[in-house]
Amino acid sequence: MAHKTDGGTGGKTDGRVVRGEQTRRLILERAMAIASSEGLEGLSIGRLAADLALSKSGIFAHFGSKEELQLATLRAARRVFTERVVLPAQQVADGLARAEALIDNWLDYVAEGVFPGGCIVYSVTAEFDSRPGRVHDAVAKDLSDWRAHLADTLRAAVRTGELPDDADPDQLAFELSAFIWQAVGDSALHGSRVPLDRARRAAATRLHHAARPPVL
Amino acid sequence: MAHKTDGGTGGKTDGRVVRGEQTRRLILERAMAIASSEGLEGLSIGRLAADLALSKSGIFAHFGSKEELQLATLRAARRVFTERVVLPAQQVADGLARAEALIDNWLDYVAEGVFPGGCIVYSVTAEFDSRPGRVHDAVAKDLSDWRAHLADTLRAAVRTGELPDDADPDQLAFELSAFIWQAVGDSALHGSRVPLDRARRAAATRLHHAARPPVL
Repeated sequence: MAHKTDGGTGGKTDGRVVRGEQTRRLILERAMAIASSEGLEGLSIGRLAADLALSKSGIFAHFGSKEELQLATLRAARRVFTERVVLPAQQVADGLARAEALIDNWLDYVAEGVFPGGCIVYSVTAEFDSRPGRVHDAVAKDLSDWRAHLADTLRAAVRTGELPDDADPDQLAFELSAFIWQAVGDSALHGSRVPLDRARRAAATRLHHAARPPVL
Repeated sequence: MAHKTDGGTGGKTDGRVVRGEQTRRLILERAMAIASSEGLEGLSIGRLAADLALSKSGIFAHFGSKEELQLATLRAARRVFTERVVLPAQQVADGLARAEALIDNWLDYVAEGVFPGGCIVYSVTAEFDSRPGRVHDAVAKDLSDWRAHLADTLRAAVRTGELPDDADPDQLAFELSAFIWQAVGDSALHGSRVPLDRARRAAATRLHHAARPPVL
């Protein structure tokens, strides 16, 4: 309603901004779907234009280059991951329960099939591991940040006394995320959810072994 | 020497067969190097012809199609893996020692950097997980066969009494191979060997937890 006071021209501008944002979101939704099954090289401005019945120049106006489009797609995927996996775990008590929530949320997120081809970062890691550049660096940072977040959560579990003082949160984060990472790959390859159950069981066993034995 | 009795024509034929085999091997060596960094879609008969200064028709005569070339590259990579990882472990006593040898050999093989882009199967798994077809099926079979081999080796460790009767070799094979799989990905992405050490430590800890406690 406040926009009314901007007068006719302001209203039109707002309308254009809103439509621009909607178009950008639409493009990124489609880009994430393509990237999840075919990787980021499968993204082209021409293909998105055809899929979405938009003009190439319209898409170009939003992203400027294929690399910018790839980076924006990764950022969009990171936001989805944060909303689905990381933020809900912040509602859970600090420590081991939060680490378990992160793992459960991630496996649920994969099981829900949010993107048709599975995890976007999984799909693009092997694609860019030997290609230096900004996309490689963004993928590497996404994975490092996630691993560091899981390790920090486990470090909190050492502080709460749920894990012993000599626990190695970085090593443990490596192991727990390995179960999920392989389950993501296995389930995409074999079209099965069995690997997700295996990962859930593996993580529970690992945390059980890592935990400080209860004082009798 | 026996060939001498075939006469001149036979000798020439043999020479052509040998040269044909050498060319085929040369093509597959180059194909594995490309696939390890860029995946199997990066393979094209035109590119191999240019890289190796061979005629396209010469390469076509060996493989017939891009798909046949991709499948032959996977078979060649499987042979390398078998020679480097699986067969040397057969020299080790059946049971837990052989399972440890399989894991060590695999991590050594990755550390040696046999292919410039790392593990070929790792590079192509995400590439083909959403593309049904013969290449997808070959990749899925390679991974399943490897996992089954590791599980069978662990089953032998149950028979020798090194693992308890209620051990779950399939679950354990999932967990152990997850450590290696993620280490392969991490080390390719970050250009570091630290993940390989993490995987080695993770596998040792997991087998230690799984093992039957020594009778006191």
